[in-house]
Amino acid sequence: MSTLATEPDFVLHTHRIEALADGVFAIVMTLLILEIEVPDLPRETGSADLTGALLVLWPKFLSYVISFVTLGVYWVAHHLHFHTIKRADRVLLWINILFLMAIGLVPFSTALLGEYYRVPAAVAAYGANMMAVGLILHSHWWYATRNRRLVNPDIEERFVRSVGHVILLGPAVYLVAMLLGWISTTLALVLYLSVNLIYILPGGAHLYLKSSTTPRP
Amino acid sequence: MSTLATEPDFVLHTHRIEALADGVFAIVMTLLILEIEVPDLPRETGSADLTGALLVLWPKFLSYVISFVTLGVYWVAHHLHFHTIKRADRVLLWINILFLMAIGLVPFSTALLGEYYRVPAAVAAYGANMMAVGLILHSHWWYATRNRRLVNPDIEERFVRSVGHVILLGPAVYLVAMLLGWISTTLALVLYLSVNLIYILPGGAHLYLKSSTTPRP
Amino acid sequence: MSTLATEPDFVLHTHRIEALADGVFAIVMTLLILEIEVPDLPRETGSADLTGALLVLWPKFLSYVISFVTLGVYWVAHHLHFHTIKRADRVLLWINILFLMAIGLVPFSTALLGEYYRVPAAVAAYGANMMAVGLILHSHWWYATRNRRLVNPDIEERFVRSVGHVILLGPAVYLVAMLLGWISTTLALVLYLSVNLIYILPGGAHLYLKSSTTPRP
Amino acid sequence: MSTLATEPDFVLHTHRIEALADGVFAIVMTLLILEIEVPDLPRETGSADLTGALLVLWPKFLSYVISFVTLGVYWVAHHLHFHTIKRADRVLLWINILFLMAIGLVPFSTALLGEYYRVPAAVAAYGANMMAVGLILHSHWWYATRNRRLVNPDIEERFVRSVGHVILLGPAVYLVAMLLGWISTTLALVLYLSVNLIYILPGGAHLYLKSSTTPRP
Repeated sequence: MSTLATEPDFVLHTHRIEALADGVFAIVMTLLILEIEVPDLPRETGSADLTGALLVLWPKFLSYVISFVTLGVYWVAHHLHFHTIKRADRVLLWINILFLMAIGLVPFSTALLGEYYRVPAAVAAYGANMMAVGLILHSHWWYATRNRRLVNPDIEERFVRSVGHVILLGPAVYLVAMLLGWISTTLALVLYLSVNLIYILPGGAHLYLKSSTTPRP
Repeated sequence: MSTLATEPDFVLHTHRIEALADGVFAIVMTLLILEIEVPDLPRETGSADLTGALLVLWPKFLSYVISFVTLGVYWVAHHLHFHTIKRADRVLLWINILFLMAIGLVPFSTALLGEYYRVPAAVAAYGANMMAVGLILHSHWWYATRNRRLVNPDIEERFVRSVGHVILLGPAVYLVAMLLGWISTTLALVLYLSVNLIYILPGGAHLYLKSSTTPRP
Repeated sequence: MSTLATEPDFVLHTHRIEALADGVFAIVMTLLILEIEVPDLPRETGSADLTGALLVLWPKFLSYVISFVTLGVYWVAHHLHFHTIKRADRVLLWINILFLMAIGLVPFSTALLGEYYRVPAAVAAYGANMMAVGLILHSHWWYATRNRRLVNPDIEERFVRSVGHVILLGPAVYLVAMLLGWISTTLALVLYLSVNLIYILPGGAHLYLKSSTTPRP
Repeated sequence: MSTLATEPDFVLHTHRIEALADGVFAIVMTLLILEIEVPDLPRETGSADLTGALLVLWPKFLSYVISFVTLGVYWVAHHLHFHTIKRADRVLLWINILFLMAIGLVPFSTALLGEYYRVPAAVAAYGANMMAVGLILHSHWWYATRNRRLVNPDIEERFVRSVGHVILLGPAVYLVAMLLGWISTTLALVLYLSVNLIYILPGGAHLYLKSSTTPRP
């Protein structure tokens, strides 16, 4: 819990970074709902009208679900990194803040998607946000493991590489989905939702973790 | 505080899940108030007019109280689970994220209830949200205790079952309230508020906890 | 950090309650600013017009400052309680949730005060919110120390009583301010701001803490 | 993690202050995005129109980036202080709450800047907010180190002074930028963004930390 940077010129506890990240993730997940407004009907409206008005909101609820699940995937991934990363230095710290900056944009791009789910530009903007999150996460892994900079020196090269590849799968799918969105926005939405299965179902995360057998106490 | 999954292919600290849940609960509880808008009157209005405008907001304040108390009940219940659940695996993690996704909807359904408290569809939507929370919490318990998957192997079957039944009481009452709401929305609101007493008053939680005598250090 | 209830039928860590309270306080403090809207002028407006529009917002910024400071006082007071309170039981837990429910109303009553600072009813509503917070905090202390229920049995009666009196000073001043507000809202605002000095300046908190010489490790 | 005040009349854990600060920073960072509204176009608008409407938002995204990075700088700085500051007393506590009050204003001043980035008064208001944050942080350092009040008695005077100077660099640049803003708002924005480089690039923080070689365990 209190792994320190060994570099003489910089000291920051990794658990501080994790605490800030936990806070940002919890808030972003919770703010998503603020983008869905209660229908504006007469207060004594009928149940049929209200139900109709709620059903019309389905793209917003779908966006909510996609973003919540995706944030869940990235939250888990971010923590898993810190099973391997033992120290933080200045650069890692700022990669993390950049990562949180991209996460902080998610309520905006989710609202955009919920409103303009049929407009390719909105679908692409959402994908670009998520692709950026994935690419920053990849740089996070790359920087920390490069020359075993901030990890145990004895972790296997094969593990480092396979984790890197698994992280890149996400941005690759987002890129494909963004392009396909110009043909069919529905297809892009399906990809946005299903890309998460790579990380939720046993296969991917198994690969991700297979050498990580000695967790932090 | 640092119980780990013993499964070789997945490692996640239960206290991480609890930290995310604490964050989401604190934020959802606090966002509820954002759904109540300050009355829009001339700035130099009289006290009588302002008081009148505030009193008209009573359904929103009532919804605030119901939701805050219900969230309190579920927050306590969620933590109590982790007195018994000692490990997390991938499935439990995602049950938790699903649980938080349903909790994250509460500000929306609370605002809906506060605005359309006389419309059965709104009352039912609120009940459906809370019923979903309860059912996911039940699956959380069921999954963790099934074959003593993520709990101490020596906890009593009777305890496991009685906790499961207590959790299901909530969704059962919500179902009844949702149906009664089509006859009388007032009756449904009374049930929404009073169902929490099952978990707040000594009886229910006593049952819930009677075998849980060895808390985590 | 991990003091437990010794009652056989209920187990809850006091640090969990503190974590939820920390979250709620941090969020409420931060939400206050959302109630102040950026002036709506033409984008290329002049500096003089914009400065004028900002200065008109002074009652909202004053309300922000009063509420932020008051929340600071109550946050400190809440934590100080847990230097003495060693265990939590069901009742204490729900007193805490009631306390947070009253804290959660503060962004609303602050916005109300910022908008209608000249209307006695708004001034009184703000005072009533803060008075409720203080009274619930007093019941928190009373319940925990009554018959030394949740505290060390050897704390002095004089300490218990003097803390109780110090807590009640706040609600007493709020009551006076609410009544005076019907004569002069300015006077009430001055009292709302200055009541906090009782707890910030050395005298009051000294009294509060003088027997509390053995803090939690 | 549990350093205590040694003064007999006041006891507060520094990690409590840090926890509240972590919460406030995470929330403020995340609320920034709420100030950027999704464009209001017909739902079935074309991609070109939507892209145009998004590009028009660039000053708001730029403000988001500037504020997020600046908050990151101050978050790091605030934590670094607590590598040296070992105890908290009443005054330090209230300096912290004042610090968080200024941090809590950032979403407002960011929204102001995003809307009126060409208006010198808005640019100056933003700079004044950030300057206040820096000055309060300086008083935090000054108070804690004055006569080695709340730090180890054996830290070097040279270290104390150089940290103080580094902290003051920020407010000095903000002051210059605010003045230059009346000539060119673009120049001020460039300074607001680039001032952070002092603290992000190796030089400044190196100075900041060079004697801080024995971090908290």
